[in-house]
Amino acid sequence: MSKLILAFSISLDGFVAGPGVSVDEPMGKGGEALHEWIFQSDSAVDKDMAAELAPRLGAVLVGRRTFDVGLGPWGDTPFPVPTFVLTHEKRAPLAMKSGTFTFVTDGIESALDQARAAAGGKDIVVMGAETARQYLAAGLVDEIVLQLVPILLGGGPRLFDGHGGIDLETTRAVVSPSVTHLRLSVPKNRANAAAAGK
Amino acid sequence: MSKLILAFSISLDGFVAGPGVSVDEPMGKGGEALHEWIFQSDSAVDKDMAAELAPRLGAVLVGRRTFDVGLGPWGDTPFPVPTFVLTHEKRAPLAMKSGTFTFVTDGIESALDQARAAAGGKDIVVMGAETARQYLAAGLVDEIVLQLVPILLGGGPRLFDGHGGIDLETTRAVVSPSVTHLRLSVPKNRANAAAAGK
Repeated sequence: MSKLILAFSISLDGFVAGPGVSVDEPMGKGGEALHEWIFQSDSAVDKDMAAELAPRLGAVLVGRRTFDVGLGPWGDTPFPVPTFVLTHEKRAPLAMKSGTFTFVTDGIESALDQARAAAGGKDIVVMGAETARQYLAAGLVDEIVLQLVPILLGGGPRLFDGHGGIDLETTRAVVSPSVTHLRLSVPKNRANAAAAGK
Repeated sequence: MSKLILAFSISLDGFVAGPGVSVDEPMGKGGEALHEWIFQSDSAVDKDMAAELAPRLGAVLVGRRTFDVGLGPWGDTPFPVPTFVLTHEKRAPLAMKSGTFTFVTDGIESALDQARAAAGGKDIVVMGAETARQYLAAGLVDEIVLQLVPILLGGGPRLFDGHGGIDLETTRAVVSPSVTHLRLSVPKNRANAAAAGK
């Protein structure tokens, strides 16, 4: 069955973009440094880790804010799979070159159901910190994939905010010269579900 | 020369203790899990990493709040070296079994000078998140040693808070079954000094 995965490059102080995210500066002030490991690294570890997620990917869930600031830079769906945008505004599907944006207005669980139906058993990733936080708080996340980048951004959107009492299990940790790659599973025990439900 | 080191076990969401730190609960709600790797791990990696800092240690700087909640559990100086407490209250030195607490009222730079003079060329560590943040903001930190623990605490004291624009260098990353050990140096370049001075 499809896993729901949060996959983010995150600063040492916990931000997935810098302060002042906008259409003109989609990664915020200094936030582009979070993705240098994807585009500017010569490390085989980084290349392997960057290449690993794509074949597992069956669908993408995108927050509205991330859609708004991302559409320009992407010029397409962010990955060549069905992509679901969480929004409060009804809107007809938007076909792009590699996939279609479907706009979902009836909540995160409905969006996840639609993504699962479209993913053909492959995994689903969430893009956008606010949407990721909602899925985590609802106890719906199976796995968290992080690239921990040794920079301090001082502000910006946080991936974790008020998610207390959740114990994860580190299933993999791999180090490259530029980042630390972590894969963590979110055990579905009662304590975690109760904590997430707060 | 003595290095100034921040050494902390930190949750995945950036806290060095849980919410509600008090004399009765010095590590806050759930925060004791941060130190399980020291006391309950069978991992040789964890044992090596825990043993590594002590021989390098020449003096300790402690924040007043950490002194207040820590003195009971420690029943001594936290390490057997000269220990300097940052406070606003003048107080005579307090001799304990393994070392002496000296109370410093004229600021973090004076405390660091006194710690350096006492450290005999060995390193100096900071205990207490607020004091650690002050030294980091002042551009005085040479190295950060973290044990990243895969738990979410949801609240508590943060190690990093408003320290933007600082690039660190990961000098070591070692993984045990329970935590990820990271050692980072804080380059003393102009950009970092300017960012820290903000």
